Amino acid sequence: MSEFGRRSAEINDVLCTLNLLGWDARTQMPSGGSETRAAQTATLSGIAQRLMLDPAFEAAATEAAGDLAEEVAAKQALDAIGALKRVPEELTRELALAKSAAQDAWAKAKTNSDFAAFAPHLTRMVDLTRRLADALGYEEHPYDALLNLYEPGLKSSTLKSLFGRLRAHHVALLQEIQAAPEPRTDFLERFYSVEDQRTLALEFAQLVGYDLSRGRLDASAHPFEISFTRNDVRITTRYRETFLPGALFGVLHEAGHALYEQNVAPELTRSILASDLLGLYAVGGASFGTHESSSRLWENRVGRSRAFWDVHFGRLQSVFPAQLADVTPEEFHRAVNRVRPSLIRVEADELTYDLHIMLRVEIETALIAGEVQVAELPELWNARVKADLGLDVPDDARGVLQDIHWSTGYFGSFPTYTIGNVMAAQFFEAASEDVEDLHGSLARGEYGPLRDWLTEHVYRHGRTFTPHQLLLLATGRELDEGPYLTYLTNKFRDLYGLEQEAKA
Amino acid sequence: MSEFGRRSAEINDVLCTLNLLGWDARTQMPSGGSETRAAQTATLSGIAQRLMLDPAFEAAATEAAGDLAEEVAAKQALDAIGALKRVPEELTRELALAKSAAQDAWAKAKTNSDFAAFAPHLTRMVDLTRRLADALGYEEHPYDALLNLYEPGLKSSTLKSLFGRLRAHHVALLQEIQAAPEPRTDFLERFYSVEDQRTLALEFAQLVGYDLSRGRLDASAHPFEISFTRNDVRITTRYRETFLPGALFGVLHEAGHALYEQNVAPELTRSILASDLLGLYAVGGASFGTHESSSRLWENRVGRSRAFWDVHFGRLQSVFPAQLADVTPEEFHRAVNRVRPSLIRVEADELTYDLHIMLRVEIETALIAGEVQVAELPELWNARVKADLGLDVPDDARGVLQDIHWSTGYFGSFPTYTIGNVMAAQFFEAASEDVEDLHGSLARGEYGPLRDWLTEHVYRHGRTFTPHQLLLLATGRELDEGPYLTYLTNKFRDLYGLEQEAKA
Repeated sequence: MSEFGRRSAEINDVLCTLNLLGWDARTQMPSGGSETRAAQTATLSGIAQRLMLDPAFEAAATEAAGDLAEEVAAKQALDAIGALKRVPEELTRELALAKSAAQDAWAKAKTNSDFAAFAPHLTRMVDLTRRLADALGYEEHPYDALLNLYEPGLKSSTLKSLFGRLRAHHVALLQEIQAAPEPRTDFLERFYSVEDQRTLALEFAQLVGYDLSRGRLDASAHPFEISFTRNDVRITTRYRETFLPGALFGVLHEAGHALYEQNVAPELTRSILASDLLGLYAVGGASFGTHESSSRLWENRVGRSRAFWDVHFGRLQSVFPAQLADVTPEEFHRAVNRVRPSLIRVEADELTYDLHIMLRVEIETALIAGEVQVAELPELWNARVKADLGLDVPDDARGVLQDIHWSTGYFGSFPTYTIGNVMAAQFFEAASEDVEDLHGSLARGEYGPLRDWLTEHVYRHGRTFTPHQLLLLATGRELDEGPYLTYLTNKFRDLYGLEQEAKA
Repeated sequence: MSEFGRRSAEINDVLCTLNLLGWDARTQMPSGGSETRAAQTATLSGIAQRLMLDPAFEAAATEAAGDLAEEVAAKQALDAIGALKRVPEELTRELALAKSAAQDAWAKAKTNSDFAAFAPHLTRMVDLTRRLADALGYEEHPYDALLNLYEPGLKSSTLKSLFGRLRAHHVALLQEIQAAPEPRTDFLERFYSVEDQRTLALEFAQLVGYDLSRGRLDASAHPFEISFTRNDVRITTRYRETFLPGALFGVLHEAGHALYEQNVAPELTRSILASDLLGLYAVGGASFGTHESSSRLWENRVGRSRAFWDVHFGRLQSVFPAQLADVTPEEFHRAVNRVRPSLIRVEADELTYDLHIMLRVEIETALIAGEVQVAELPELWNARVKADLGLDVPDDARGVLQDIHWSTGYFGSFPTYTIGNVMAAQFFEAASEDVEDLHGSLARGEYGPLRDWLTEHVYRHGRTFTPHQLLLLATGRELDEGPYLTYLTNKFRDLYGLEQEAKA
């Protein structure tokens, strides 16, 4: 192994260990451990940073001359080193302190629905994040510097026009849907035991290809996927005993993330191409959006499809015979795809979810640009929720205070949820063209062909390519909302018995 | 915080993280993760070593001038740095390679009961370990250098005379016992569900003071306790559905270890006085033997006492009404204290356990001294088992190949099990003298007074004192087998209805 490879492996080992510290804290750790765990995490982060900024690592990266993968890795390492060096240590320290205070303040403010109590912290976070954007550098818009942390190469200007088109489409489709009769959903809220939910969810995750010899499922307050190399890729979910779809589709979603990580090429293991050097964690996926494309694809395109329930509803019914005795596969499919505007992002359906995202992105872009002030946020938020979703926001806890993201400085990550939806549709369309009888295989409950296509064109590359390069290679197209909008339109017109335009 | 304190905290954080990597690998990790986990562990160990051998850490330790605890910590750090520097890097590398090969060879040899296949690996391990002892340095016996890694200050000469007296006592008492009728034990092997065993074991662990807000219980192939600071102290056990005492007393044993860690003084958190710098892991207990004294005390002195079951047998019976319907507390107490020579150390009873230990210590001391050759081991082993336990060893898998220790280079750790028994009796005797009505409180199922005494005199000090200093401070005596032998003699004469000498 080259000196660059050896040092990269060491960095990846530390990042995997940081991931483990985080996984354990969220799934296993007793409550008393939180304070010292925070210290352990800070120490390991510091060590990772020192290893990256070791002049010998920079020299090794500069001299790296292996195969193409090593060259790409070396360039990524040098870019990250450059970025880290541009951020003043003082700013990093201030950000860490401000985040810690802001998270506490946010949690209290949300409990009390007291935006004013959170406002000064948010102002401080916006100010520091703007300074971070300046330090990292950008060409057009300061928000681009932040986007780049999650979705390398994506620009605010691209988002703006893309989101404009999405919003117009979604709002119009939502109005059509709201004029139609609602499907029945009563049976989703019957009693479903946690144990049986877990058994089934894990069964479906394995069906689509999640390898439990390199994974496991745990419970946590907020579901997530995390990996310590492709050989150990874990997912979590949460259960509600009176709401079946939560864990069922949540696990398929996280399994979609996990499929990405488990199918990164083995030769990228312990390399920079399985490491996020700026986020300081181990990850094999190319970007947040690319990752989300996989989770959404398996959750929605596969899991919420009519084909899926035509094949698997019998199994579901066999585990919950009493609860689902009076339900047909068609009714189940319609129920788990019901569209209904709601106040809370994480509870939103497939169509209105993007509207929640776009509202946040619009606001945070303006915040970072200095075009709106923190004090104006509740009014802006509530007006947009009324305009897009037709809902009155009763309090800030269910409005502008609902998400943790801004208190943790994650400005720039929200767009990746919707980008993931768009990319998922592009990948699925390309797979449909490439794979013979893809729809036939899905109708038979065979997920290997789709997974193999994704592995070949997306997963195995790890972080070798930018999302833009990956899209071009896999689909021949740039980021393009066409397939996504066609999919949504066809799906929901079909489900709600609306008038069909010509199908794509 | 001083520079020494800051750097010590960083080292302790890394050692706690190493502990977490190990805990996870043994309790949670999917099988596929083992190879990359080994790499992560090796990387973190290397980082811990580099932090310790950083000249700036040595300088900080040399200049440390805080309170007494910091002075003691600085001395321990300098001693460890000195020891590490004396061990050639080449030897460390050779040992790591030899261990890895020897463990694989041992596992196969044990499966096939083929000592000859393991012999060359053991010869190599003995040779390298002898070189390690020479590098670390000693005054009297090379084995002392190894003992020092687990039981600082203990000498082979001390062990030899101590073990001579113990062996004579144990063998004589065993002969008395074997002439008496055996207690009934049939009910121990009825069906006990894992879930109920777990509930009860955890209940008893909490009764003696194990704090679950800073701990948790998992299952693992080999039971252990491990901590990531006093705020997160975890234990594991294994369950057999047809043998009740295994998990029940196993959990009390591990809870005894955990009580030590959870009650180290908070101000030692993240310090050198909660770090084993040579073993490279985080631990608050003063030594292996001191730790074992706590686990044995809670498992045997408390958990296997008549008083314990007079108070708690009703609860046990309420969880297992069918299984224990025909059993009295007295019968239960007699059954879980049955003495019967057996081939396997980890299944041995309280009395014969020491005989297993002494046989191993005698052999490994002679190996390290070059007084016996590896090829002679099976014969030596079998002869000693016959002499002490009266048993014929049917094959080496159930004889000299049964323990993993020698393949992993843990020469010098075996004595600490018996040292723990001896120290436990000394601590218990001192507590009985210091604490008013200690026996009354135990008879009422109140464990706070005993735990408080141990916290005050043992636990809270962490690794501030050597085991020898700790014994002197807590009991006013040096290591002394008197209380232990009195305890065993009285207990088993009583249990087996043997003729009593005057009680202590």
